[in-house]
Amino acid sequence: MNEGHARLLTVVVKPFRASDVLTALAIALGDEILNHCVVREAKGHGRQKGHNYLGSEYSFAFLPKVEISVPVTAEQYEVAAQAVVQAARTGRIGDGKIFLVPSVLEVDI
Amino acid sequence: MNEGHARLLTVVVKPFRASDVLTALAIALGDEILNHCVVREAKGHGRQKGHNYLGSEYSFAFLPKVEISVPVTAEQYEVAAQAVVQAARTGRIGDGKIFLVPSVLEVDI
Amino acid sequence: MNEGHARLLTVVVKPFRASDVLTALAIALGDEILNHCVVREAKGHGRQKGHNYLGSEYSFAFLPKVEISVPVTAEQYEVAAQAVVQAARTGRIGDGKIFLVPSVLEVDI
Repeated sequence: MNEGHARLLTVVVKPFRASDVLTALAIALGDEILNHCVVREAKGHGRQKGHNYLGSEYSFAFLPKVEISVPVTAEQYEVAAQAVVQAARTGRIGDGKIFLVPSVLEVDI
Repeated sequence: MNEGHARLLTVVVKPFRASDVLTALAIALGDEILNHCVVREAKGHGRQKGHNYLGSEYSFAFLPKVEISVPVTAEQYEVAAQAVVQAARTGRIGDGKIFLVPSVLEVDI
Repeated sequence: MNEGHARLLTVVVKPFRASDVLTALAIALGDEILNHCVVREAKGHGRQKGHNYLGSEYSFAFLPKVEISVPVTAEQYEVAAQAVVQAARTGRIGDGKIFLVPSVLEVDI
């Protein structure tokens, strides 16, 4: 087991931006980082509120997103976050989010 | 980037309860919170143990769940957790779980 | 609500190892632990780098993985991690990862 303390950076982006985000991470942190990425399908953002004659009612219109989790060191975090933002930002609403969980332990199986 | 320290509340519920949970979160914390939700398909709970003539054997019967992650502030947590529990509880086994990860940093892309 | 402080162990393994990992967790920590597992489909590892005449180019070949999250106590962690590694290891590249997030609060709905 290789063990290392890390921070877990989880990025939620529009699906068509996912490979750009992965490429940006590889360029910023080195190709090796891709071996540590976990990718999931998710949904996020997008809510339509409608009112009907019975009162208020929410209709949820969640759109497909891709969620990428990658462990980074404290030193890598700023570079990684900037790379992700540059790759994922289109300037429109719903471009995505980054969640950072500090103090994650990663163990190779 | 808007940055804010938060706690990450992850809720695992039966699929037919998911929109009730999202509605409850919107009522409890304001509509804006829905823009921060990430929704995933998952499986949870449900295990059948069988014994055959060769010895004990597990058969896993994981059932579909919906997993909703939402960043909340320390102040919002109690209200959010209560809203989720009220919306998700049916009184039967397997209603779900809430996981709270303290000290998450959220960054808008 | 039953509340308990825990650590969240998230295991990313090859799909055909998932039921072995769950069985190993049940044997190591007791059957009850399975009621606390959340299972997701994910992708991980696997990256092919190609160069074409226009310059370097990444082609991402993420392979299916199963991601299992389970809350454990500080005392359970070592036993759980060893059980997972034994069940998931094939000796080949890409066997998987364990992420441990300390200090997670779990609440039963």
